[in-house]
Amino acid sequence: MITAVERVRAAYARIAQVDRPEVWIGLRPQAETEADAAEVDAKAAAGARLPLAGTVLAVKGNIDVAGLPTTAGCPAYAYEPDADAPAVARLKAAGAVVLGTTNLDQFATGLVGTRSPYGAVRGAVDPERVSGGSSSGSAVCVALGIADIALGTDTAGSGRVPAAFNGIVGLKPTIGLVPTEGVVPACASLDCVTVFARTLPEAERALSLMAAPSGRALPAQAVRRPGPWRIAVPEHGQLGELDPGWAEAFDAAAEQLADGGAELLPVDLTPFTEAAAMLYEGAFVAERYTAVGAFVDAHTGSPDLDPTVAGIISRAGTIPAHRLYADQEKLASLHARAMACLGDADALLLPTTPGHPTIAEVTADPLGANARLGRFTNSTNLFDLAAVAVPAGDVAGLPFGVMLIGPAFTDERLARIAGLLTTPPLRLAVIGAHLSGQPLNAELLAAGGRLVRTTTTAPAYRLYALDTLPPKPGLVRVGEGGAAVEAEVWQLPAEGLGALLAALPRPMALGSVELADGTSVPGFLCEPQAVEGAREITSYGGWRAYLGS
Amino acid sequence: MITAVERVRAAYARIAQVDRPEVWIGLRPQAETEADAAEVDAKAAAGARLPLAGTVLAVKGNIDVAGLPTTAGCPAYAYEPDADAPAVARLKAAGAVVLGTTNLDQFATGLVGTRSPYGAVRGAVDPERVSGGSSSGSAVCVALGIADIALGTDTAGSGRVPAAFNGIVGLKPTIGLVPTEGVVPACASLDCVTVFARTLPEAERALSLMAAPSGRALPAQAVRRPGPWRIAVPEHGQLGELDPGWAEAFDAAAEQLADGGAELLPVDLTPFTEAAAMLYEGAFVAERYTAVGAFVDAHTGSPDLDPTVAGIISRAGTIPAHRLYADQEKLASLHARAMACLGDADALLLPTTPGHPTIAEVTADPLGANARLGRFTNSTNLFDLAAVAVPAGDVAGLPFGVMLIGPAFTDERLARIAGLLTTPPLRLAVIGAHLSGQPLNAELLAAGGRLVRTTTTAPAYRLYALDTLPPKPGLVRVGEGGAAVEAEVWQLPAEGLGALLAALPRPMALGSVELADGTSVPGFLCEPQAVEGAREITSYGGWRAYLGS
Repeated sequence: MITAVERVRAAYARIAQVDRPEVWIGLRPQAETEADAAEVDAKAAAGARLPLAGTVLAVKGNIDVAGLPTTAGCPAYAYEPDADAPAVARLKAAGAVVLGTTNLDQFATGLVGTRSPYGAVRGAVDPERVSGGSSSGSAVCVALGIADIALGTDTAGSGRVPAAFNGIVGLKPTIGLVPTEGVVPACASLDCVTVFARTLPEAERALSLMAAPSGRALPAQAVRRPGPWRIAVPEHGQLGELDPGWAEAFDAAAEQLADGGAELLPVDLTPFTEAAAMLYEGAFVAERYTAVGAFVDAHTGSPDLDPTVAGIISRAGTIPAHRLYADQEKLASLHARAMACLGDADALLLPTTPGHPTIAEVTADPLGANARLGRFTNSTNLFDLAAVAVPAGDVAGLPFGVMLIGPAFTDERLARIAGLLTTPPLRLAVIGAHLSGQPLNAELLAAGGRLVRTTTTAPAYRLYALDTLPPKPGLVRVGEGGAAVEAEVWQLPAEGLGALLAALPRPMALGSVELADGTSVPGFLCEPQAVEGAREITSYGGWRAYLGS
Repeated sequence: MITAVERVRAAYARIAQVDRPEVWIGLRPQAETEADAAEVDAKAAAGARLPLAGTVLAVKGNIDVAGLPTTAGCPAYAYEPDADAPAVARLKAAGAVVLGTTNLDQFATGLVGTRSPYGAVRGAVDPERVSGGSSSGSAVCVALGIADIALGTDTAGSGRVPAAFNGIVGLKPTIGLVPTEGVVPACASLDCVTVFARTLPEAERALSLMAAPSGRALPAQAVRRPGPWRIAVPEHGQLGELDPGWAEAFDAAAEQLADGGAELLPVDLTPFTEAAAMLYEGAFVAERYTAVGAFVDAHTGSPDLDPTVAGIISRAGTIPAHRLYADQEKLASLHARAMACLGDADALLLPTTPGHPTIAEVTADPLGANARLGRFTNSTNLFDLAAVAVPAGDVAGLPFGVMLIGPAFTDERLARIAGLLTTPPLRLAVIGAHLSGQPLNAELLAAGGRLVRTTTTAPAYRLYALDTLPPKPGLVRVGEGGAAVEAEVWQLPAEGLGALLAALPRPMALGSVELADGTSVPGFLCEPQAVEGAREITSYGGWRAYLGS
């Protein structure tokens, strides 16, 4: 494995290459991070077990990193923390090197990624679109391949919306699972530290390193009723207006879960969307004033304050306590209704957001565009639920993301279900020794393979008898002048395919094989050298026919 | 996907092919199972969600399957159950088709697989070795690719020992997680229904379908202390005598967990091995007499009784209750010591057994050989722990297996940790557009890839500039007369590799690439047709040098 120092150098090279200065608030000098990395390398060389050695980490600007100011996206608010937040300290102790602190919607107030005097963070894929917020810089620097993992926070959806917009994974743990000490509060009773990564296993590993016993009693749902995964899926009418193509992409994600064995249950989303609307429209926003209201009021008009954020927080100071009592009562009732709607479902599947606006659209309507983004995320923490946001394909060239939301402390189970979306089984075309009944078929069975169908390739191939042990055919694409060759299509779990490839001997190869119906799937091919001088057996129509001849 | 009927036909074809009649006690006639399968196909066609449609299931002969006698391995004991055991019923409701009931060590008393009047079940890989028991037939028919999943039971290790001997996965759930109604008791307070499958995801899916809320309080360990996975690993001296090469294989498994980020902790195994010895040597074996002692005594000398099993059970009838009180007190003390030894470790890693005897060795010493096999498994249920048994490579051509044992109700977590052993990350050699800084490098990053090192291929290749978009090189092995080509070796999670292969466009291919140091790793190659007429650029020494020229 490359050293931590080499990994850090690659990160700075990538930073230079992507030219996204707005991602960072406090990017550390390369010499400093290289020194940290050299220390990690030295410890590893001395035998220390550092599971995150060689991993670079970015930290949202509202989380304490010793040696860097904590700004929460507001220069005037900055303070020098005495120590790392425990979440950061735990990842560093495991060998991660912190690159710096990242830009955010000021005071973590927003889901857009544009509300910052440090600049609007542009989307990783399309720079004219918002990155999503409030953990904007953290998500973008993971999506761009600068950092391996990044910390965010999530009160209303800040750890999930930017994951969706940038095509990465965002874990929003159960409240209390990761300590929030050393984090500038947004709504202190709802805030969670979150993880971004490009893959679920990387995100889960980081979460497992940060998770702490909370002393909270585990809910009854931690042991589930037997049966397939039960996934609550609202009907389109309940989702409100979505961006074009998103309803179809959402259906495809639900179908993928069903293909993976899940049972899909209809669910009434009304209590969730009603609670979501309460987060900013109701009295709960007053908790943001409790956190930083006095500071905001004292700095009215300062260019260090984002005007939209400052307006939200200032107005929150005028909310009377009697409204909070009323809202708490209303929320309790919605919570009971929501849990009744979920029943014993393992998870609720939702699009992470209803759409992905451009920066121009958010500038034109800062409050409206933002409010729309939180339709599906805002209620999660109010209802004390855990959530996993994962990519679920593209729509019109932009990432589309979904969430799985479930009971508190089912974080591991939600990630396991999300794996059905991120690692769907693969198809594999076999044409020789792996066919049913042939000597290497057992390899497919051992890898968890199932026969899907028997067919032929497109009439574009030639088949050769190779000089291998056991005897195998070599499939060679020639296009015009080729013939159809007998093939079986198998389905393999992704991990099974990896084992098969790792053990694949020369001269066999895997590549894209065109089938009779015009579709292409990965399948067995061979290296060019293998067919030189080999006997062509295309006319038999397939390996089994040749063997039987 | 093939139909359930086709899957059933393939199972019977495989049964005929492997010629292992001793696997079965009650193999159902093919016409019956095909009729069941046709019903599954009809339901699926009518839109029913059947996560196990197309899955064939084998059931250990001590678990009720309606329509087949329950024998527990003893013809004279057989009864006709009124209904399926709940565990079976749940899998059938999900679409699984039962092939039949499988052979076992009589009354589930044994770890060898030879104690049955239906014949000794031979190992799947080497028929001269024991299959392991008591769930012998279930394990072998999964290992041989007949059934996709099979049910076993586990009191002393019966769901794990045969998994290890036959190179498959065995899940031993927390006591009570799967109902044991409809199971002939061995030690009723310790018995568990278990699952065999060739891969972890298949086994986990079956378990999730069978698991039931137990009403038991969850232990404090269900929320873990932050940090890497903590794996307790005993030193060699504590493991006692192992078969040749097994200590090294065990170390390799521990190293693989460490490579996956786990922290390895030394642990004192004494309380575990002392408790293990109590299972048969102490008073607990009397619970077997409670279950079937009267039957055994009434059939003394019958050829339907296995003499070894009958001897164990008859002798158990003479154990005085005062010894049971004393043993329970001793066990409580050992349990407390064992939990203190484990501390807050997530799991204890152990070889599943100390060795793999031949059938001849077991025949020569039926009690001694059997007792040795339970050294690591016997204590698990006595201490109310969950366990996962997984393959961990081969030693001298025979499967080697390890267990991860953890607190009750950490079944999901143990499977997640076991995944580090069953799906290690893969190496991938890249030589063109996927190199660091090149246009497709982002695909590797998005798949969770990490650069391991920069090197060259062995001097056995030629490089061509292909006519692709973006431009890519084609690497062609020529052996003699070839040159070394610049390469980067990346590490990818198995699921990332699957995504990469699924998206691989023609004419690219993945196969085995020989590196400068003589090792081979999967890497990028191309189809033969692609290099016809392409410009050879070998002399540049690599793709980057060619691009820069």
